[in-house]
Amino acid sequence: MEGELKPMNAEQLRECGHRMVDFIADYYKDIENFPVLSQVQPGYLRQLLPGSAPVHPDTLEDVLDDMQRKILPGVTHWQSPNFFAYYPSNSSVAGFLGEMLSAGINMVGFSWITSPAATELEMIVLDWLAKALNLPDDFLSTGRGGGVIQGTASEAVLVVLLAARDKVLRKIGKDAIGKLVVYSSDQTHSALQKACQIAGIHPDNCRVLKTDSSTDYALSPESLSEAITHDLAIGLVPFFLCATVGSTSSTAVDPLLALGKITKDRSALIQSLSTNPEFLKNNASEKNVVVDYKDWQIPLGRRFRSLKLWMVLRLYGLENLQAYIRNHIKLARDFEKLVAQDSRFEIVAPRKFSLVCFRLLSPQSDEDCANKLNRDLLDAANSTGKIYISHTVLSNKYTLRFAVGAPLTEERHVVDAWKVLQVEASNLLRTL
Amino acid sequence: MEGELKPMNAEQLRECGHRMVDFIADYYKDIENFPVLSQVQPGYLRQLLPGSAPVHPDTLEDVLDDMQRKILPGVTHWQSPNFFAYYPSNSSVAGFLGEMLSAGINMVGFSWITSPAATELEMIVLDWLAKALNLPDDFLSTGRGGGVIQGTASEAVLVVLLAARDKVLRKIGKDAIGKLVVYSSDQTHSALQKACQIAGIHPDNCRVLKTDSSTDYALSPESLSEAITHDLAIGLVPFFLCATVGSTSSTAVDPLLALGKITKDRSALIQSLSTNPEFLKNNASEKNVVVDYKDWQIPLGRRFRSLKLWMVLRLYGLENLQAYIRNHIKLARDFEKLVAQDSRFEIVAPRKFSLVCFRLLSPQSDEDCANKLNRDLLDAANSTGKIYISHTVLSNKYTLRFAVGAPLTEERHVVDAWKVLQVEASNLLRTL
Repeated sequence: MEGELKPMNAEQLRECGHRMVDFIADYYKDIENFPVLSQVQPGYLRQLLPGSAPVHPDTLEDVLDDMQRKILPGVTHWQSPNFFAYYPSNSSVAGFLGEMLSAGINMVGFSWITSPAATELEMIVLDWLAKALNLPDDFLSTGRGGGVIQGTASEAVLVVLLAARDKVLRKIGKDAIGKLVVYSSDQTHSALQKACQIAGIHPDNCRVLKTDSSTDYALSPESLSEAITHDLAIGLVPFFLCATVGSTSSTAVDPLLALGKITKDRSALIQSLSTNPEFLKNNASEKNVVVDYKDWQIPLGRRFRSLKLWMVLRLYGLENLQAYIRNHIKLARDFEKLVAQDSRFEIVAPRKFSLVCFRLLSPQSDEDCANKLNRDLLDAANSTGKIYISHTVLSNKYTLRFAVGAPLTEERHVVDAWKVLQVEASNLLRTL
Repeated sequence: MEGELKPMNAEQLRECGHRMVDFIADYYKDIENFPVLSQVQPGYLRQLLPGSAPVHPDTLEDVLDDMQRKILPGVTHWQSPNFFAYYPSNSSVAGFLGEMLSAGINMVGFSWITSPAATELEMIVLDWLAKALNLPDDFLSTGRGGGVIQGTASEAVLVVLLAARDKVLRKIGKDAIGKLVVYSSDQTHSALQKACQIAGIHPDNCRVLKTDSSTDYALSPESLSEAITHDLAIGLVPFFLCATVGSTSSTAVDPLLALGKITKDRSALIQSLSTNPEFLKNNASEKNVVVDYKDWQIPLGRRFRSLKLWMVLRLYGLENLQAYIRNHIKLARDFEKLVAQDSRFEIVAPRKFSLVCFRLLSPQSDEDCANKLNRDLLDAANSTGKIYISHTVLSNKYTLRFAVGAPLTEERHVVDAWKVLQVEASNLLRTL
């Protein structure tokens, strides 16, 4: 490149951008050659990097060389076809292009005026998504609903909790915050517990209702009803239930219809989260003819988030996206069949989507031994670097989770992953 | 491109990525040709786009064509050299490359194990940053401090408020949340008000202390001390002061040393925000030898955030970054001189960094007329599409803000912006 890198320069961006595209494309070409789960030790990187930032510029090639030799060995490769842990965080060609475009335009869309297209495209593509999911019309922006892309699922849980909290406190007074009660099951994601901590809900008032295999770990409407009756009797104020479609541990599905009605009204959210400082006032907002997404979320600032979803929906189309999800579910079903054919293993919870919960049976009847055996199997399989899986505990049983969903995963990866688990299981059983 | 776009494919990513780099480089080449502030009307985009997502894929060229013809007219161009509104949200070649790389690797770094390099690089580059800013050693990760990149400044304000709230509630009991008092000035960013709403601080207990031009809109330690004394006397519990270095309205600087001591201890933050669900447990976290950034922030998920800062620090080097900031301050000083030379205008607050607060003087002495005149000047200047500035109110005076900081801004842009303001001021004064 000619001369030093400027803060911004179209031709330097072009040249360096092309170089970076090649680096990333090469990363995907090689991705199966890395251990899926990084095998580095805590603190490995500090020894490899200088103690302070350089005074004078390094070159892009220097940085990419460090990326390859020092950083990538410390990366756990979520996009590897052999990543079966947690839930997938899918990359895609279209999604990557959307991220590039959003980073390139680099605007901050807190109010409509700060980039009208960012707000309007988000409203439109979330209506597209609601229609693609066959949600009732109440969810569309044309009614009292409307969508917003939150930064994370945790923030989505938090903002609805805040909307519900403030709606009830407007009725009964702010001093009653200590009386508010939240309900969930023992399968609900920890994001709810964190949201309650943040929102100042008294920890004694967070009801975690027990589930078991009799309902496939779904919340029972009867136990909810009992808990609410009891809380009302002692003068507390039930105000929030978190139900789950596809829990993290085992994809349990709570019976939404039996649990109660959802209100679908954006105004509670906006009343809870809006601020209106002088330095953000503008004609369009004051005339109340536009959406200002700053009032639908925790942060003020926000990216041009909708570009990514827009490009994914357009560049793949709904039919291909449906086929993509169905293929992952089919691959999980294949894995489930493989587990079922090996009598040394058991399926712990019924497979509903693309997650299989299973465990190795212990020759000893002792539950502690069985749990240790499965923990050892997890560690042994992940230490090979060939696959990465994670775990949960269901009814006190340490349970392995095999979640299919990485964009490069094919049938052969699932078959090979099962072989790794079988080999490591045989090794462990031999040492017992 | 050969065949349909696959979910992920190295060679398709390469081909499409190169195309997108060219689109973005061309955008920067043309950026001065767009109106800085988008001139579209509310709802413009819905008429231009279909009502639902396509069933079959569109091509990348279709999407880029829509981007150019339908989306870009609705974009307010924060990276334009003629953007002087709010505060800058700087793009840069290096920052763009960091975003690309982060989107390419696309991992989720909530716990150390989920990508050790993401956590470790963030700790290292934030130590680099602390050293570059000459912060005391207490702020480094090697002591009880350590940095974290929050999603937004609003989240940074919220998490320290939560840490302070929970620290005091651990002493005095959770039931005392209604007694907690927060202090700030009337210049403090609205992010604090929103954080208080979220954290369940009683709105009656948020003290907004008045400032005026006698302290250049900085918070006075005496008025803080008086307020605290009063609150203690009536049995309330003061627990949080938000001081500001460079307020949003006028870059006012609160006197940090006179206002009190900071505690610099990450443990209060982690105690407030940690959760430990079974499905995220792992050996490294349980041995307590690693940092899990999920416990330092609101969300669970997080990107490989440090890559961007790492690339900016390395590809520019500290000396160039210092020169870059100093140049923006110099350009603001140039603008301030231009304003001072035109007796029709006044400087409203002293310029400290790269923001100039100024207003057009009204021939009438009526304050309402003067405010209307400046509001009209703002609208007139922004409607030209040649520049974008924003406003605030200081001591009841409607005040124009000229914030220098976009990466492409040069002296000529500042000079031309001043000419636009002079021409529009002359037009307005002529009609009075």
